[in-house]
Amino acid sequence: MAITPGPLLQTVNSPDDLKKIPEEKLHEFCEELRQYIIDVVSVHGGHFAASLGVVELTTALHYVYNTPGDLLVWDVGHQAYGHKIITGRRDRFETNRKYGGLSGFPKIAESEYDTFGVGHSSTSISAALGMAIAAKYKGEKDRKVVAVIGDGSMTAGMAFEGMNHAGVSNTDMLIILNDNGIGIDPNVGALKEYLTDITVSPKYNKFKDDVWNALNKLPVGKRISRGIAHKLADGLKGMINSNANFFESLKLRYFGPIDGHNITKLVDTLKDLKQIPGPKILHIITTKGKGYALAEKDQTKWHAPGLFDKVTGEILKKTFDTPQPPKYQDVFGKTIIELAEKNDKIFGITPAMPSGSSLKYMMEVMPDRALDVGICEQHAVTLSAGMATQGLKVFCNIYSSFMQRAYDQAVHDVAIQQLPVIFCLDRAGLVGDDGPTHHGCYDIAYFRCIPNMIVSAPMNESELRNLMYTAQLEKTKWPFVIRYPRGEGVLPEWRTPMEEITIGKGRRLKEGKDIAILSFGHPGNFAAAAIRTLHQDGILPGHYDMRFAKPLDEELLHEACRQYPRLITVEDGTVLGGFGAAVLEFMAKHGYKNEVKILGIPDRIVEHGTPKELQRECGFDAEGILQTVRELMNEKLVVTEGSISA
Amino acid sequence: MAITPGPLLQTVNSPDDLKKIPEEKLHEFCEELRQYIIDVVSVHGGHFAASLGVVELTTALHYVYNTPGDLLVWDVGHQAYGHKIITGRRDRFETNRKYGGLSGFPKIAESEYDTFGVGHSSTSISAALGMAIAAKYKGEKDRKVVAVIGDGSMTAGMAFEGMNHAGVSNTDMLIILNDNGIGIDPNVGALKEYLTDITVSPKYNKFKDDVWNALNKLPVGKRISRGIAHKLADGLKGMINSNANFFESLKLRYFGPIDGHNITKLVDTLKDLKQIPGPKILHIITTKGKGYALAEKDQTKWHAPGLFDKVTGEILKKTFDTPQPPKYQDVFGKTIIELAEKNDKIFGITPAMPSGSSLKYMMEVMPDRALDVGICEQHAVTLSAGMATQGLKVFCNIYSSFMQRAYDQAVHDVAIQQLPVIFCLDRAGLVGDDGPTHHGCYDIAYFRCIPNMIVSAPMNESELRNLMYTAQLEKTKWPFVIRYPRGEGVLPEWRTPMEEITIGKGRRLKEGKDIAILSFGHPGNFAAAAIRTLHQDGILPGHYDMRFAKPLDEELLHEACRQYPRLITVEDGTVLGGFGAAVLEFMAKHGYKNEVKILGIPDRIVEHGTPKELQRECGFDAEGILQTVRELMNEKLVVTEGSISA
Repeated sequence: MAITPGPLLQTVNSPDDLKKIPEEKLHEFCEELRQYIIDVVSVHGGHFAASLGVVELTTALHYVYNTPGDLLVWDVGHQAYGHKIITGRRDRFETNRKYGGLSGFPKIAESEYDTFGVGHSSTSISAALGMAIAAKYKGEKDRKVVAVIGDGSMTAGMAFEGMNHAGVSNTDMLIILNDNGIGIDPNVGALKEYLTDITVSPKYNKFKDDVWNALNKLPVGKRISRGIAHKLADGLKGMINSNANFFESLKLRYFGPIDGHNITKLVDTLKDLKQIPGPKILHIITTKGKGYALAEKDQTKWHAPGLFDKVTGEILKKTFDTPQPPKYQDVFGKTIIELAEKNDKIFGITPAMPSGSSLKYMMEVMPDRALDVGICEQHAVTLSAGMATQGLKVFCNIYSSFMQRAYDQAVHDVAIQQLPVIFCLDRAGLVGDDGPTHHGCYDIAYFRCIPNMIVSAPMNESELRNLMYTAQLEKTKWPFVIRYPRGEGVLPEWRTPMEEITIGKGRRLKEGKDIAILSFGHPGNFAAAAIRTLHQDGILPGHYDMRFAKPLDEELLHEACRQYPRLITVEDGTVLGGFGAAVLEFMAKHGYKNEVKILGIPDRIVEHGTPKELQRECGFDAEGILQTVRELMNEKLVVTEGSISA
Repeated sequence: MAITPGPLLQTVNSPDDLKKIPEEKLHEFCEELRQYIIDVVSVHGGHFAASLGVVELTTALHYVYNTPGDLLVWDVGHQAYGHKIITGRRDRFETNRKYGGLSGFPKIAESEYDTFGVGHSSTSISAALGMAIAAKYKGEKDRKVVAVIGDGSMTAGMAFEGMNHAGVSNTDMLIILNDNGIGIDPNVGALKEYLTDITVSPKYNKFKDDVWNALNKLPVGKRISRGIAHKLADGLKGMINSNANFFESLKLRYFGPIDGHNITKLVDTLKDLKQIPGPKILHIITTKGKGYALAEKDQTKWHAPGLFDKVTGEILKKTFDTPQPPKYQDVFGKTIIELAEKNDKIFGITPAMPSGSSLKYMMEVMPDRALDVGICEQHAVTLSAGMATQGLKVFCNIYSSFMQRAYDQAVHDVAIQQLPVIFCLDRAGLVGDDGPTHHGCYDIAYFRCIPNMIVSAPMNESELRNLMYTAQLEKTKWPFVIRYPRGEGVLPEWRTPMEEITIGKGRRLKEGKDIAILSFGHPGNFAAAAIRTLHQDGILPGHYDMRFAKPLDEELLHEACRQYPRLITVEDGTVLGGFGAAVLEFMAKHGYKNEVKILGIPDRIVEHGTPKELQRECGFDAEGILQTVRELMNEKLVVTEGSISA
């Protein structure tokens, strides 16, 4: 049953509709929008607290600016639910993040109001500046460009790079700093402390009064001249908190901080800022989860809580009769503590994902040895490299798709110097609901081509523990990638004794005939399931869990190439350049002519859905492997018959 | 004949030797060190102006700090010649950047004084902070850590990420900002303007006097207590230019600016700063090229001028009797202007390499359409993406190895959205003297695995022009990579009429038999040379210039696979996951069983040398291709004979 929006929200199918609501009723509209988000997310899931925090901002932006002519760029974009609802997607909002449904992030292909696809943090300033420069070049004087970025996203260097250019760009772009003190986990770092300093300073309240007095004198609604605008800006500047010149030193006019939940003030401020030329930043203070008390109280938990009872706040979890396998994340989080208790050289580093990666467990019990450095993958990797030069064994845990941000650092600072940093690549493979920006598709290909890199993937929890154990040994002198997927593994009894794995050695899991499956990582379980079914049909594939995409287990590969005329490789990564390609390179080197079928993520953008739906779509789930084996065996039959008849 | 150092420099083979020189003689030592760098670089080549600018700083650092126990991290590292000379490498300094000789950059494997390998910018703060955190964790209270970073490097977001963490890290690390207003080309951006503001402010001179008065009161040389140190720092703080709080807002204690060519002041300041706990930054003002008048005057030209007459300042260039081919860089730089004159949607973007990329030509004639955005590859790419959303055709020119810095942006902001940004990847392949940090080895592999990407490489200047022409056409709706090497092409008459190339179509250059060479990009010329020799021996390889690693020309590949039992692929990129692997994937898909040999950059770190030396070492120069063909043809002979005898 469709969820009913409130009476005002019902009238709004576009920003034009929104503009018909009188300003004094916007407060009501915001409450309805907030309630609608609560209603839908509680029963359909998705990101929650971030969108609640920007209900007023979203409303004010579409009320004041002429979207889509004016260009709004949302940083990260998990806060853009209100934006989607206002811009004509309310009727599809219940499909949000579902297979075939709306994307959980802004997406150019989805709406003309989505000016730039996002998902990763800190891109908004650069993208918006590109739009502003283009508008200026094209002589589109009335086109306004606004980037909305959180304080967490501000810590990534990319945002700094954007500001460093914006400040001297002579464009009219506006950056809105949505300061709520938190990303997914609480924000950290010097800039965060600085922003807190500004906000709590005694000048804050005085500022608030002064600035509104000044703004009220403006001929609001009338177009004011550029000269007056300059004077206005200069006047406002005098009232600005003097601590504020982090931004001023980057040549951005700074305004704020103001209350981001006061819709009237927001609307009035934005109207005024529209008249002020040049690059500028408005600092607003919001509360993540605003309006849902539990979310305001535990913002990390309510970032994306899954389904919940909106009345009681109870988060709904599946119950099981039997013990379930743990998440790979928790196996990582608990195993690193076990290892660190015995090896005092171990450190843990996460760029802003202590909860997501489960490094939080180590941060709790060993706060000096496990650090959240904020959203800054580049720094996280080179920091780890610096620590490694001093003999430490750093587990640097980064999501596969975010590691793309630190690719140069992995090459230049780790691999070239052969420093034994351990990269735990979380969220490797198809991540599910978050879609293309978050799929960890490329890491096998982009790391395998780098000298000195060890690239491994565990097929289950016990293997993950053994790989972690192996990586931290003193004798392991190379950068060591361990990639594993989001979510549950396969072993309820996961806390197995750890043992060393010889680097570059895979496992023969099953002897067979005619055809062998070479799997890399977790999809080995899909292969095993397929093989169980095939056995019932009398087809007996061999199965190797290769464990390492680099170095390859050449002994096992020689065996497989000699014993099996047909090979299938299976991986949760791109079919181009990945593990399958590595097998082909081995074969070319040694002159093997086996028939090979590479299963993995195809060469196109895979959208969102559950991992199972997407793995099926890509054809490397158990069913896909099964079909591939059958097809190859049928082909073989045909060929054999052909040979016989010849 | 070896170059003779001055009398003081002759006595210095280590920092310990340096410390024996009385402080009042350091000025003389600096002049000798400067002269020695001029003497050696003028006849052996290398980076020049940067090292001249930090002669005093280098001397002061090794004079005051207890290297290698104290850890110095040089950002970029092309300014570290003085450091190399002081730290026991004077006798090998004439081998600098030569095949088998010293690296042009700090390198861990080369010296215990080189704490961290560098080459790319902006890594020093993160690396040094990692070292400082490690030292603190290990209880090494006396170990000091110093990062030296230029104002150009400060513009990359990675430096900001490092400072954002350093400021709250509670370590004693010192960052030295070497502010000379220039990288290779003049620095740009808001931060640069801010630094200029600080330096030219009227408070500067007053500060200089005050700070020295304060510092002179210190019990220099004696260890002072932490309490006194705090008071000292607070006292100094009061004298700090109030504009300076860009750094203070990041919780770094800011000191400066001071004259970086006053060795006495530098030594005294560093001695004092050693006593001051906590993270801090010292801002010094230097002149790039200091002490060599011509270099001071034209700093870009003298960044790495090649060989020159040190007396006259004449830069020595080879002369030729016949017209020589142009650099690919200049073909790019001049062709983009030709195209932009006809297509007003074209923009050019370079992150800090206007001279190196030759975009400077367009910046001169079309200053509104060609931008140097400073060292910020991430921003450069997403800015380009933002412009592309507004219909512009942006040529974003980035060196292949620096593109690693913007990998996520290329994936997340360009490829996933299928925005038609044109990436001109300069310095693709083995770059020569700069060595492993600068080799553009990986781009074929790291871009080929990304959906929507077109990955091309021209075999000559005319092809480069045609690819550029094709990329900017309105109908070309995909991100378009054009990779080309550093230096000269092959066509003296390069300004050929431009024509469209069908995307994904290669060229059959030569029909042959038994064996075909499939080349990608410039190394196709090596293949052509090899084939000319082979023809004399009666061996007749076919030759295809494939042009595109993605999409592949499947028609040509079918032809090659059907006609030639043996194939050799040649590329100036990694043999893992690159163009050769793409050919193997095609063959696996279509069931071809040809013998394939992949030539390219092997799976190990290739050091520095001339491109020719390195291509030979890697076995894909003409000689290497020739030998490979002969080996394969001999093998064929052996196999055939074997078959006959069987």
